[in-house]
Amino acid sequence: MDERLKKQLGFALEIDKEKNIFRQTHLSGHGRNENDAEHAWHMAVMAYILSEYSNEPVDVAKVMIMCLIHDIVEIDAGDTYAYDEENQKTRKAREDAAKQRIFSLLPDDQKKNLTALFDEFEACETAESKFAHSLDNLQPLILNNSNGGSDWREHGVTSKQVYTRQGKTQLGSQTLFEVTDNIIKDNIRKGNLRE
Amino acid sequence: MDERLKKQLGFALEIDKEKNIFRQTHLSGHGRNENDAEHAWHMAVMAYILSEYSNEPVDVAKVMIMCLIHDIVEIDAGDTYAYDEENQKTRKAREDAAKQRIFSLLPDDQKKNLTALFDEFEACETAESKFAHSLDNLQPLILNNSNGGSDWREHGVTSKQVYTRQGKTQLGSQTLFEVTDNIIKDNIRKGNLRE
Repeated sequence: MDERLKKQLGFALEIDKEKNIFRQTHLSGHGRNENDAEHAWHMAVMAYILSEYSNEPVDVAKVMIMCLIHDIVEIDAGDTYAYDEENQKTRKAREDAAKQRIFSLLPDDQKKNLTALFDEFEACETAESKFAHSLDNLQPLILNNSNGGSDWREHGVTSKQVYTRQGKTQLGSQTLFEVTDNIIKDNIRKGNLRE
Repeated sequence: MDERLKKQLGFALEIDKEKNIFRQTHLSGHGRNENDAEHAWHMAVMAYILSEYSNEPVDVAKVMIMCLIHDIVEIDAGDTYAYDEENQKTRKAREDAAKQRIFSLLPDDQKKNLTALFDEFEACETAESKFAHSLDNLQPLILNNSNGGSDWREHGVTSKQVYTRQGKTQLGSQTLFEVTDNIIKDNIRKGNLRE
């Protein structure tokens, strides 16, 4: 088999492992924990159906692929819970090493392309990356809200922590931030989020 | 909240259920059964990195969204194993009812758009749908092959059955069919597939 295709298929098999990286978010219906591959799939479909709410016009295909690959590094680096301040400190170093190893399985042009997409997402400066971040925030929020805020209650998360994290949603979509804000306020009222 | 956005978010929450639809395929490393959302995510990433092998030029964004949504109907209709001939007979009717219910959660323009994408995938006549079918076949094949063909052995699948199903791969990609053919022959040699 051609060396290029062999590398691409090696990468395709390697990323299967993302299905074993579990997050703190639970599926709707008080289900089990969600994994990174499911989260990425959900975000990408939401990117397609919610793109009209991006603050700036976006290339939806670019948002979708960004959503699909943004957590691949967690195969090595693991999922770092948004409200785990200690582990957030080492997150970048762990994810950089993972990015280097995993994207290097691809042919060089595709390694460069996926690395650039990943870096663009992380920098959160372009229209596409800002909208992708809005979705990265909104997707677990709607699941958690559907479960009566149980993920927040389990970890004793405060409304301030949620606002700090969800603040980035505004950069990508004012409309989706309004949804977010309503959900947070509703969960404060219900006592699911500590003030 | 705006009625349109409310519908879109209702759809986004509903499709979370796709993560509970399990397939016969097992994850690499002799892992658990894979679910539809993971399968769709994997196919969409593969669409992005393998698009150069499509027989005809494709709009990669269209292939990706087709991959992402092609199994949403299984939320109601369930997964029908490719080699379960009895249940394959009723598959279309079950999936048509599901398509009607689930896509109707969306605003009308998006219902039409997603229904059209789903129907185009099913008809397998355009370049994008043919390539998406190649990926729908190849993705479980590489997982099963990585597990020593255990999914085939478990169900006593024959090489003829596999060739019948995987035959469609040629329509989308001659190159990926050659990969498929090598994998099948190798598994026949190893006794993982009955002749």
